[in-house]
Amino acid sequence: MKVQTWEQVAARKRKAVLDSIPAEWIIPDHLLPPGTQDDVTNFPESSGWFTAEELTITNSDALELLSKLASGETNCLSETCFDRGLETARQLDEHLARTGKPVGPLHGLPISLKDNFHLKGLDATVGFVSHVGAPADQDATLAELLETKAGAVFYVKTNVPTAMMMAETVNNVQGRTVNPLNRRLTPGGSSGGEAALIAFRGSPLGVGTDIGGSLRIPAACTGLFTLRPSFGRFPTLGCRSGMPGQEAVQSVNGPLARTLGDLEIYCRAVVDAEPWHDADPRCLPIPWRMPAPPLSDRKLKIAVMWDDGMALPTPPVTRALRQTVASLQAAGHELVEWSSKDQAQGLDLLNRMFVADGGHAIREEIAKTGEPWFLPEMRAYSVSQELGTRDLWRLHAERQTYQKRHLDRWNAAGIDALLCPTMPYASVENGKFRHVGYTGVYNVLDQSCISFPTGIKVDAALDKALDMSSYQPMSEVDKMIQSEYHAEAVHGMPINLQLIGRRLEEEKVMAMVKVVLDALS
Amino acid sequence: MKVQTWEQVAARKRKAVLDSIPAEWIIPDHLLPPGTQDDVTNFPESSGWFTAEELTITNSDALELLSKLASGETNCLSETCFDRGLETARQLDEHLARTGKPVGPLHGLPISLKDNFHLKGLDATVGFVSHVGAPADQDATLAELLETKAGAVFYVKTNVPTAMMMAETVNNVQGRTVNPLNRRLTPGGSSGGEAALIAFRGSPLGVGTDIGGSLRIPAACTGLFTLRPSFGRFPTLGCRSGMPGQEAVQSVNGPLARTLGDLEIYCRAVVDAEPWHDADPRCLPIPWRMPAPPLSDRKLKIAVMWDDGMALPTPPVTRALRQTVASLQAAGHELVEWSSKDQAQGLDLLNRMFVADGGHAIREEIAKTGEPWFLPEMRAYSVSQELGTRDLWRLHAERQTYQKRHLDRWNAAGIDALLCPTMPYASVENGKFRHVGYTGVYNVLDQSCISFPTGIKVDAALDKALDMSSYQPMSEVDKMIQSEYHAEAVHGMPINLQLIGRRLEEEKVMAMVKVVLDALS
Repeated sequence: MKVQTWEQVAARKRKAVLDSIPAEWIIPDHLLPPGTQDDVTNFPESSGWFTAEELTITNSDALELLSKLASGETNCLSETCFDRGLETARQLDEHLARTGKPVGPLHGLPISLKDNFHLKGLDATVGFVSHVGAPADQDATLAELLETKAGAVFYVKTNVPTAMMMAETVNNVQGRTVNPLNRRLTPGGSSGGEAALIAFRGSPLGVGTDIGGSLRIPAACTGLFTLRPSFGRFPTLGCRSGMPGQEAVQSVNGPLARTLGDLEIYCRAVVDAEPWHDADPRCLPIPWRMPAPPLSDRKLKIAVMWDDGMALPTPPVTRALRQTVASLQAAGHELVEWSSKDQAQGLDLLNRMFVADGGHAIREEIAKTGEPWFLPEMRAYSVSQELGTRDLWRLHAERQTYQKRHLDRWNAAGIDALLCPTMPYASVENGKFRHVGYTGVYNVLDQSCISFPTGIKVDAALDKALDMSSYQPMSEVDKMIQSEYHAEAVHGMPINLQLIGRRLEEEKVMAMVKVVLDALS
Repeated sequence: MKVQTWEQVAARKRKAVLDSIPAEWIIPDHLLPPGTQDDVTNFPESSGWFTAEELTITNSDALELLSKLASGETNCLSETCFDRGLETARQLDEHLARTGKPVGPLHGLPISLKDNFHLKGLDATVGFVSHVGAPADQDATLAELLETKAGAVFYVKTNVPTAMMMAETVNNVQGRTVNPLNRRLTPGGSSGGEAALIAFRGSPLGVGTDIGGSLRIPAACTGLFTLRPSFGRFPTLGCRSGMPGQEAVQSVNGPLARTLGDLEIYCRAVVDAEPWHDADPRCLPIPWRMPAPPLSDRKLKIAVMWDDGMALPTPPVTRALRQTVASLQAAGHELVEWSSKDQAQGLDLLNRMFVADGGHAIREEIAKTGEPWFLPEMRAYSVSQELGTRDLWRLHAERQTYQKRHLDRWNAAGIDALLCPTMPYASVENGKFRHVGYTGVYNVLDQSCISFPTGIKVDAALDKALDMSSYQPMSEVDKMIQSEYHAEAVHGMPINLQLIGRRLEEEKVMAMVKVVLDALS
């Protein structure tokens, strides 16, 4: 057996993914946008490659959007399974013709999946060279449910950062995924391949995962909607984890889409399939419950957290937050201030949970092929000390106390929701993502969160950088973030915010985001 | 400061608990049953100490049963708080007089609590000498809910084994609790103090906990009903654990009572108080839901597991199981066989989770005072090696796979419930409890379980020991159990069985036990 270097393994993998795209779908190089063009989202319309009919389709949802994926401008794919997609579609057509009824609520909808969802016969490298060439022998539980009960069609899996433990999407197998709205910016991570693909209209809806912000950050970087559900609403079995068996903070999965309505269609489809019954023993038997009485009957009480005490939001985010608060107040809702006093401890808990094994799970995969560690964000996994079980139990106990204190604060304030940034950025240049505190604390608390586009965009004229000669930074990371902020670099980018509900209140947080959007519109 | 030996600390504690009982409630020695009398449950009636009115009360539920507790025949108490009970009762009376309405569904009901539930001002030693003299500064979350929202009255806490990690109830602080139905037998553990007190009619209803059978085993030893709920139905915060922060298998709490109806009243009271809202962030927002359509409209499909492949039930338990199966079949229900093939792995997982910290949490408490290790069941905690977090994660992953395989089997069989022994015994002599496999596996699976009395009693004439000269034991433990079984020793004892439902199906398993009891009656 010939021993390959990690570079050879990764190169062959990239070629294999590219080769899996039929030649007739490959867009000739001369039609591709030049490397100097940052925003490539208008490429489908401007390229002349697509017919009017195809463009109509890609602006909605349908199978033919597959050809769009051949362009590769954003490097957002990790795997393809076009044959499977076409075969599923054929079977769905047949079922419909035979029975006159759709297979399920997502009949025929192409859904892209983050790389870690196993699909039979495909790799799930999650960015590790060591996992190249080890195809799954069965589908992830969620994939099986979506395909067989809901009628979804799978055709691609999307790129992630190494171990899915970074807030950008870069690894030694597939390289870096960039943001189709501006290729100098990151689509975030770890569900960055999903966000890039959906923002580029290469998928109408995708499924990602979130253990510290991995759904919400990519949604924010690309102006999409996403729901981070509490653990137990959606099945999680049969996925590749970067840290298998880690349960101190649970990874969850959820949809990424261009509309709030799309999120709801997806959530209903999954929950109505009763995944607790046969799919995943850790799912909770909680049906999809709309708030009763409906929220439209009353005013909401919403807390607002302007900053998390660790990293001030960059100017566009603060402006969007101010405008959202003002709009909600104008609509008659009650807004109260929320202290950031518990945020640092929450983030600290999260960070300690992530490296509780001393980074061994990740180190072992890295060591198998000798691929390099490259991002500072991954440094903790290479230098941490493993906790013994006794110390991990102490960490659990500390987390329980933290959760209870937060719940008591929530009840004392009597709030329906908490409104805050999703991240300090509207979006940020590749390689400069610094802080996941705004999202990660709510993984520790396991609350229902939605990251949603406000409709407000960065305006370089309004969103000027702080004067660093007079600004007193909150922390070293804040200093870095504010120094690195350049309004021009993110001009025109969408700005997301985060709305947080109670644990297992996915339906209510969705209804509340609708209220926020109504106030903003 | 004078240094005390562990014996001195424990002796002072026992004296303090005894001294907390008012002198006028102490029953004179000459009235107490002789040490040779095994069954002391008739003592209240035969002693002549109690008035007819008092006996009427103790056979139902009321505050005056407090005086019963003074006799101490079963050594079932760990703490008393009669002043608190009387004060709570006064406030409840006042509330009722003022408003004309009860405080809640358990208005005025005396409820006993297992030692680990913190009550302000009382110790919660959980059997460790090291915890003597360290009173709690606040109530456990569940206690607060029961008192303030449901109207319960607290007056005693009950004895447990060291760290609550044995299936009998013995420790170096309070000594051994015995079974009031036969004092040579154990009331089981770890909620053995509760079971003894309730079986003796010293409490109408109590709350215990279960991490491997600690509710179900005591209920079985004393012929009571109990529910081991899935984690998340009832609040667990603010209790003393023998292994704080241990979450691989979650400890849960539930009621012990003399009727199935009492269990339901309690469960409704707790769940209707919506503990997920403010009591405990790990509680699930699942209301109390009766099966719809009601189970009476259809026949059930129930799997029966005759033995767990590790320890054959002793003869009376097998007889009770046979009779129950026959009664269910006669009533038209479908009974199918359930293979024990997954039981050994389930028990192995449980045992590894218990000692994942190498026994450090327990060893540290033992070491503080030098109290001796005494029971073989505790030996694992003194000799195990601590797992690192990475290996604990592997254990979690193994458990997830195990849970899924079991769920798939359950669905393939299409069953409503699983019927099996609660333990190999009807009851067993003090010091001879050997095997928690029948209960512990369902902690790993987190399924809803009820241990219920069948109404069938041990009959020495019918339930003769196996002939050990020809019996081929399943295992060393089985050999021990069968050799140690003497029909005469447990003659007349009630026989419980266990009915297991799906995870978070507490309501349905309760309704199914009703069906079983109807079939048996």
